[in-house]
Amino acid sequence: MTAAARARTGGRAGRRAVRTAPDHTMLPGLSRNLPLCEPLDEEQVRKLDDASMAILEDVGIVFRDEIALEDWRKAGAKVNGERVYLDRGLVRELIKTIPSSFTYHARNPAKNVSLGGNHSIFVPMTGAPFICDLDNVRRNPTLDDLATFHKLSHMLPALHSSAHHIVEPYDHPISHRHLRITYSSMKHSDKTFMGMTTSPKNAEDVMEMCAILFGEDYLEDHPVTTGNCNGNSPLVWDETMLGAMRAFSKRNQPVLCSPFVLGGANTPASVVPAVAQLNAEALSALAYTQVIRTGAPAIYGHYLSTVSMRSGAPMAGTPEISLMNFMIGQLARFYNIPWRTSGSLGGAKTFDAQAGYESAATLSAVIHAGANYIWHAAGWNEAGMHCSIAKFIVDAEQCAMVYRMAEGPRWDDFDEGLAAVRDVGPGGHYLGHPHTQENFQRAFFMPEMFDNNSIEQWKAEGGTEITERALAQAHKLLSEYQEPKLDEVKNEALLDYIARREREIPAADALNQDH
Amino acid sequence: MTAAARARTGGRAGRRAVRTAPDHTMLPGLSRNLPLCEPLDEEQVRKLDDASMAILEDVGIVFRDEIALEDWRKAGAKVNGERVYLDRGLVRELIKTIPSSFTYHARNPAKNVSLGGNHSIFVPMTGAPFICDLDNVRRNPTLDDLATFHKLSHMLPALHSSAHHIVEPYDHPISHRHLRITYSSMKHSDKTFMGMTTSPKNAEDVMEMCAILFGEDYLEDHPVTTGNCNGNSPLVWDETMLGAMRAFSKRNQPVLCSPFVLGGANTPASVVPAVAQLNAEALSALAYTQVIRTGAPAIYGHYLSTVSMRSGAPMAGTPEISLMNFMIGQLARFYNIPWRTSGSLGGAKTFDAQAGYESAATLSAVIHAGANYIWHAAGWNEAGMHCSIAKFIVDAEQCAMVYRMAEGPRWDDFDEGLAAVRDVGPGGHYLGHPHTQENFQRAFFMPEMFDNNSIEQWKAEGGTEITERALAQAHKLLSEYQEPKLDEVKNEALLDYIARREREIPAADALNQDH
Repeated sequence: MTAAARARTGGRAGRRAVRTAPDHTMLPGLSRNLPLCEPLDEEQVRKLDDASMAILEDVGIVFRDEIALEDWRKAGAKVNGERVYLDRGLVRELIKTIPSSFTYHARNPAKNVSLGGNHSIFVPMTGAPFICDLDNVRRNPTLDDLATFHKLSHMLPALHSSAHHIVEPYDHPISHRHLRITYSSMKHSDKTFMGMTTSPKNAEDVMEMCAILFGEDYLEDHPVTTGNCNGNSPLVWDETMLGAMRAFSKRNQPVLCSPFVLGGANTPASVVPAVAQLNAEALSALAYTQVIRTGAPAIYGHYLSTVSMRSGAPMAGTPEISLMNFMIGQLARFYNIPWRTSGSLGGAKTFDAQAGYESAATLSAVIHAGANYIWHAAGWNEAGMHCSIAKFIVDAEQCAMVYRMAEGPRWDDFDEGLAAVRDVGPGGHYLGHPHTQENFQRAFFMPEMFDNNSIEQWKAEGGTEITERALAQAHKLLSEYQEPKLDEVKNEALLDYIARREREIPAADALNQDH
Repeated sequence: MTAAARARTGGRAGRRAVRTAPDHTMLPGLSRNLPLCEPLDEEQVRKLDDASMAILEDVGIVFRDEIALEDWRKAGAKVNGERVYLDRGLVRELIKTIPSSFTYHARNPAKNVSLGGNHSIFVPMTGAPFICDLDNVRRNPTLDDLATFHKLSHMLPALHSSAHHIVEPYDHPISHRHLRITYSSMKHSDKTFMGMTTSPKNAEDVMEMCAILFGEDYLEDHPVTTGNCNGNSPLVWDETMLGAMRAFSKRNQPVLCSPFVLGGANTPASVVPAVAQLNAEALSALAYTQVIRTGAPAIYGHYLSTVSMRSGAPMAGTPEISLMNFMIGQLARFYNIPWRTSGSLGGAKTFDAQAGYESAATLSAVIHAGANYIWHAAGWNEAGMHCSIAKFIVDAEQCAMVYRMAEGPRWDDFDEGLAAVRDVGPGGHYLGHPHTQENFQRAFFMPEMFDNNSIEQWKAEGGTEITERALAQAHKLLSEYQEPKLDEVKNEALLDYIARREREIPAADALNQDH
């Protein structure tokens, strides 16, 4: 079997993982095999690139950070106050050393994933100040709640990461949370995880904990975590984010360079010019990662929303978000840099049909856009204000469904399938045919969270809506959870580090969130 | 402005219609301007075509209808009992006279739409034996309920048709329903509509009523209605459908040739061979339309589901349905025939998040697949067993949203948008900028049915979920409904025809539904 043929069928490992999904085996990182939705022709890509470069050259971009300004001066940029003017030649020279793809390492090497090219991973939502819990009650979350999400992330096959602060653990001081969050990600799951970037010092703590878990030297040439750095659109990067970026990039750990887009409020009220602006923003940060350390992995990223004229609130699932995703995908591929987007955004206050439409519309768009790092892929609701356990379960299954779609049609049993047509003939039925019995399960995805019974059967089984079914599934999963134990020596070292840092850090600090 | 540029921006008429959507102005038929998702390479298209043709040649297809069998004999096919063996040369010769595109005429010429090529229309669901009504109660529907749906279809901008029996009017005898249904479609909306095909005689009645409404001669070269003919997969066409097909094709009215696919039950348990079978089925019916009348318009169609191993019920929103849509789109374009699919299918029993995910996933896929006739685009729930008024309203808005997405990115204010970036600069905001004020409304779709307020504001406004908001919107629309009056002479003639036929037809007959 050729590599192309393997990619086409998703590979034996992919098929086996799909079949054994009830065993909670992680699906391998997705290898997409569907043509992408690319609405820009070559000339339009060049026009957008030119517009973004012209913004960086003529308007400039603000780096509110003395170290970054000094770094830029040394790198040859024109700096005027806090404003940095970046020549397109310099930008292109810098970003060309960003790896076009890399392996993102988990503590269980079987759960390593590829990022870049036609590879995609699904990463849970993070940063929610509220939880809709196992009883569907909206409240402030605790560290135990965060552990619940890390356990579920560990068990849900299509999630490739346990991320970091899926919900904010309000029962711990803000200034200590990054330690507890990182430890929870490391302890409850052996998949990849994200690192906190809530301050430069917090980011340094994450790096130290990663060095304990993976080994100091290992980090030097193995990406083991990802940090998100939000831009302040339009055209500003602040000290917190830049300091965190330095902590990660210096250690060769990848940073998501994420303009935070509220379309119409902090961008022009037009999709294409908005993309020109956010592309300029992303490029400036990506270039800076290479000023910090040549060759450090980095991810072209953004958080995308459009703004409601009625309330000023961010909207999700709108057509312009899909269009921006399609265009950004083309730009990231033009620059040959892996890219991040958000998968299952929604503004609904409950897990109602609005949440379903919003999330499915966005998830579908990002698959057709060819995103590599699909963040916020499970649990996001209420514009990120709460993470819903019920939605987390359903979204994770949606990820498995688009995973299957993105693998494209399988041709490996084409002849056998046609033989079945000849066997069965006009007016026959297939359910008893050997080809059907052998292939049914792998041929057709059967969503566990969707009810497809008759209404009579559905009523007889309790007449539940999807929220109730998903919460029952969450309870079931948690009852089956088995902790992937940390090495005892490393575990002790991590706990010692946390204890020491908690003694050192005053238990009061400002709350910072990322998206 | 060139035609290409007009297509790119959706045209002035499109923009105006979007802006004035609260006035219930119909959006023009969609001109898609996004690249399509085409997972088959040329060789794979040829392999599928070859497999389908081999099925028609070697396995044959059953036409359970004496007239059709005699027609096929005369056309030169080999007929053995009810089984017809179709040579690929004959099939290709026949289907090449099917128009690759045509205008579908409404009684209000401003609401004519194009079918074929990059044109798409959205048509409501039909055939539901139950309604979830204005109070969200599930019950048997009446002719008044059907009128409600026809009125809403008339008012919702992204719906291009009032279809026919959106719900079954149980308060009228089955044998008379087709007359009342057709009249209701004609009376309450001046958009295009569908014609009943529940029996050959019913189809003849529809043709007579169309001749009254449009003029006998007008029908000869103007498609004014569409009839659906379901196949009995695998590889059977029955007498009812074939007789109805003759009624339509003889009068030059387009028929949807729709294999009824329950993937895994009446197809092989594998996506690509399943498509080979349903392609053979569709081709045989398409070819027969040209035996009936050379050059008659016809539509490549299908109803697609995969079957739940658990219950045997049809599932919706699954990845295989999306993949089948992508491939079928390629085949229809290979044969250069307009094609129909289903837009917003779902198996949920209530309008919960399941319904949202299912519908959005399918609607997105059919847009990327490039379907021309997007049937069942609003209201479908419970595997077609009920049409929900709330879902009808929300789905219609979803159609408007994918309509906007499918138009692709607009470049017409690129320079002005970039000028705004320069005006606003780093750290500024756009809400007060003239470009924003002038463009906000057309730049960003704001879904009326999605709530994007803060939870505090949402609670203050009653804390409604989407079902409640949609039903309120339905009440509002119905209170604003203005009947697009029929010409008085034609109206009288239609009522006379119905009265005569109701005297002639016994008030008892078998129930037949189509999908």
